[in-house]
Amino acid sequence: MEKINKSVLNQVITPRNPESYKGNYGKVLIISGSTHFGGATILCSSAAVNTGSGLVTVATIPEKFTAINVKIPEAMTIDYQNKKALTEAIKNSDVIAVGPGLGTSSIAKGVVKAALTQTNNKQTLILDASAITIIAQENWPLESKANLILTPHQGEWQRLSGLDIAEQNPKSNAQSLQQLNPEALLVLKKHHSEVYYHETTAQIEAGNPGMATGGMGDTLTGIIAGFIAQFGFSFQTVSAGLLLHSTIADKLNKDNYVVLPSKVIEKLPKYMAKYSYKD
Amino acid sequence: MEKINKSVLNQVITPRNPESYKGNYGKVLIISGSTHFGGATILCSSAAVNTGSGLVTVATIPEKFTAINVKIPEAMTIDYQNKKALTEAIKNSDVIAVGPGLGTSSIAKGVVKAALTQTNNKQTLILDASAITIIAQENWPLESKANLILTPHQGEWQRLSGLDIAEQNPKSNAQSLQQLNPEALLVLKKHHSEVYYHETTAQIEAGNPGMATGGMGDTLTGIIAGFIAQFGFSFQTVSAGLLLHSTIADKLNKDNYVVLPSKVIEKLPKYMAKYSYKD
Amino acid sequence: MEKINKSVLNQVITPRNPESYKGNYGKVLIISGSTHFGGATILCSSAAVNTGSGLVTVATIPEKFTAINVKIPEAMTIDYQNKKALTEAIKNSDVIAVGPGLGTSSIAKGVVKAALTQTNNKQTLILDASAITIIAQENWPLESKANLILTPHQGEWQRLSGLDIAEQNPKSNAQSLQQLNPEALLVLKKHHSEVYYHETTAQIEAGNPGMATGGMGDTLTGIIAGFIAQFGFSFQTVSAGLLLHSTIADKLNKDNYVVLPSKVIEKLPKYMAKYSYKD
Amino acid sequence: MEKINKSVLNQVITPRNPESYKGNYGKVLIISGSTHFGGATILCSSAAVNTGSGLVTVATIPEKFTAINVKIPEAMTIDYQNKKALTEAIKNSDVIAVGPGLGTSSIAKGVVKAALTQTNNKQTLILDASAITIIAQENWPLESKANLILTPHQGEWQRLSGLDIAEQNPKSNAQSLQQLNPEALLVLKKHHSEVYYHETTAQIEAGNPGMATGGMGDTLTGIIAGFIAQFGFSFQTVSAGLLLHSTIADKLNKDNYVVLPSKVIEKLPKYMAKYSYKD
Repeated sequence: MEKINKSVLNQVITPRNPESYKGNYGKVLIISGSTHFGGATILCSSAAVNTGSGLVTVATIPEKFTAINVKIPEAMTIDYQNKKALTEAIKNSDVIAVGPGLGTSSIAKGVVKAALTQTNNKQTLILDASAITIIAQENWPLESKANLILTPHQGEWQRLSGLDIAEQNPKSNAQSLQQLNPEALLVLKKHHSEVYYHETTAQIEAGNPGMATGGMGDTLTGIIAGFIAQFGFSFQTVSAGLLLHSTIADKLNKDNYVVLPSKVIEKLPKYMAKYSYKD
Repeated sequence: MEKINKSVLNQVITPRNPESYKGNYGKVLIISGSTHFGGATILCSSAAVNTGSGLVTVATIPEKFTAINVKIPEAMTIDYQNKKALTEAIKNSDVIAVGPGLGTSSIAKGVVKAALTQTNNKQTLILDASAITIIAQENWPLESKANLILTPHQGEWQRLSGLDIAEQNPKSNAQSLQQLNPEALLVLKKHHSEVYYHETTAQIEAGNPGMATGGMGDTLTGIIAGFIAQFGFSFQTVSAGLLLHSTIADKLNKDNYVVLPSKVIEKLPKYMAKYSYKD
Repeated sequence: MEKINKSVLNQVITPRNPESYKGNYGKVLIISGSTHFGGATILCSSAAVNTGSGLVTVATIPEKFTAINVKIPEAMTIDYQNKKALTEAIKNSDVIAVGPGLGTSSIAKGVVKAALTQTNNKQTLILDASAITIIAQENWPLESKANLILTPHQGEWQRLSGLDIAEQNPKSNAQSLQQLNPEALLVLKKHHSEVYYHETTAQIEAGNPGMATGGMGDTLTGIIAGFIAQFGFSFQTVSAGLLLHSTIADKLNKDNYVVLPSKVIEKLPKYMAKYSYKD
Repeated sequence: MEKINKSVLNQVITPRNPESYKGNYGKVLIISGSTHFGGATILCSSAAVNTGSGLVTVATIPEKFTAINVKIPEAMTIDYQNKKALTEAIKNSDVIAVGPGLGTSSIAKGVVKAALTQTNNKQTLILDASAITIIAQENWPLESKANLILTPHQGEWQRLSGLDIAEQNPKSNAQSLQQLNPEALLVLKKHHSEVYYHETTAQIEAGNPGMATGGMGDTLTGIIAGFIAQFGFSFQTVSAGLLLHSTIADKLNKDNYVVLPSKVIEKLPKYMAKYSYKD
């Protein structure tokens, strides 16, 4: 499989226009979290803020607002149990990421359904974690007017595609994606993660086993959301987000046995500055 | 438009009198926050504390007290829904900043009304964000016995002045301000922000697009509040606060693609020390 | 007035016995905080933990437990509204500090009364902030079986002693203390704070106006509590705690216009290590 | 008594397989915390996360979820008062640590009983703090199908073994352990802590009196849990975890009079990286 070249970082992470304002960097909505999975929300939203998204709104349950205020004072919050508020937030966002720590309750199902059905073709919808599990369990068609991105790990991809992990390979994955939705972009999280979109597939060479810890996937979802909000939906944008995540983790892994997601997040502004300089 | 010279930092940020005590550095009241906008309160109050305000009280809703205690243990809290407590807090403060994350509920309106009507001519009242929106929406006269400072971004200024963003220019802005309240000071937040007061107008040259992210305006409001509490109300004081905010952000932007408000805040004591040294 | 010599730091901060365990470093109880003053509790308790107290228990209201768990996971918590629990905690502690952020409610009064009456002659009781105000307001005799330490600022000392700030001087202060309780130790917080005990009075030369900010006094109280828990009640111990607080603040003030209490606290373990080395 | 050689760190902390994923690094369940002891949960769980456990779930009371989300976003949470949820979590975990900050309420007793009776022979069960006190008080047989590890300090060991601290010595400790459960592994926390397992006993030479502070034992429990989750149950694994804890603390003690548990925890990834490099 083709390798994603590091030059994609330089190409995607463009210097900002001096006369721009926060409206130019997109509105991100992270729909995430439930009573027992509050940390996923923090990691995903914090990643989106640290990439430089213009505005980040976190749709979660109110009992998580205090933790979000403490950890991500730059973000706003809404209650996803309030259907009207959720609908309005979806409508007002450029990128919607749904799933981290959401669980599979009936409320979670309603929320995923809202994200699938209320988005439009100017928007990007990222389906992650519980959102993928729900779609698989409910056997819902993978349909939305938005640009669709799926970010499963191999177990979640198995649920969605029906492919056992042993059966998962570039060809079978591409075929399954084609059947699920030929317009969707797939990020398959694994050792050397892969991106599938239309006829293109590619793989990163970065990544390390110190990343094998809870919350790393939630963090990646936040990064991809922030990248699309700023740089637009494309195979390149997603590839750059994916590669940056692992590139930072690789640097950290030299001095850290386990690479904690929060450490990757705090390095985002520095590494993005570095790659935004053009020589 | 005249540029604000960096020497204003040295002029305004004076070394402290060795025999002074916290009563000399002013009492700041930040009236801010609501269920869905808790982070704005944290950023604004934290900025006021980090500039060196003598005492900072945060008037917000009780569900935000835990986050404030965690992030700003130096601050006190009151519930702005308690009219008596709010009235007393306004009376006891030197500088009152109202608006960040306040929202436009009827409670928020009452709170802004209290700030406008209960302040006296020894005090400074800073109107920001939701407070400006409310005054525009309600078509209230822009009147208060206090020294008045407005800190809108261009969209909020449009609501208040009626000037479309395209129509906003030094002349039209000055005229609108004159009509709204000839004694008010206007900080217009934009690319190279501008200050208007009486016949004087000036602009900073600092600032960068990495600042285009949520919470930057709330942070500026807290800095200006802290500066006035310590250095007194004046065109110079406000200019110095505005310039310091962007100067710190410019330094951070060299190594950070996005400049997060919390990073600007944590650098305040160091940069203020630096500019307080007179050669 | 005699100056407290820096050598007191070396004398008091003794290297620990390699075979000691946490029981050797004392049990500290911080009775502190109320709905609107949660930060004082965090600063005071955090200072006590960072000096090296064996065990710190925070008696406060339950709505502050989350903030304490986040900021000081090393501490335990109890609810001071539970009389039985408070009585037991007082009985089990070596040092009890009461007052920071306590307010002057009837519950606060009961709590101060409990501290005054339930302590014994093996214990040290530190009265700070609201505790001093309550005793002054209620005109209670300043009596306790415990070693008594008072840590007022000049305004609180005025309330307790009846001396206007202009009337406060070494002689009048010593006389007032003699009348209030000839066995009590007084730390008068001011520019170059002073210590009074029996016939001895002394003053620190350290201290700077960057310390003139909310929470500095709460921090000092926590340091003194931690010092007595480890090094025993004495004029020297209190002087060393007082001097360390200002010495750290003086170092920080070189690079920080305002010296935030939380920064002093985080430096405690390093400076104590430094002064524990005997040449 | 034999000394644990530093080489055990190198032997146990093996480099990770590049193709591994988080399932390879174990599922840890920390059953911990109660209203007044919330910090113990944070320290223990945070230590488990920072060693590199694949997934950490914290079973505690819901009022502690916010603090956990803030401090350890990588962890999941459940309510141990929900018997069904607790049973399922125990079943799904590789390592279960029970006791830190649990208290001795009837709910705590039920929780310890569940841990003892619902674990199986593929699992490791670590009994610490309140769990040991409960077993001693209730005179329960020390029985479980899981690999059993006890981590008492000397006072807790006295309660469990009946040996006064003065009577505790390698021989008496080994005999008591034999009687309590000949398959259990004992970590006796003291000056130069000791490990007992089958016929083997050994002692670390690391450790310092700066560690004599609240929360150090909770931290050790989390480290041991994380080590077993990754490196498997063995005398070596436990010895390595114990030694690493004190080795990091010794380095910190050079510059810190008191070694706070949170500082040991934050250094775990760096020291584990260091010891994982094989020359």
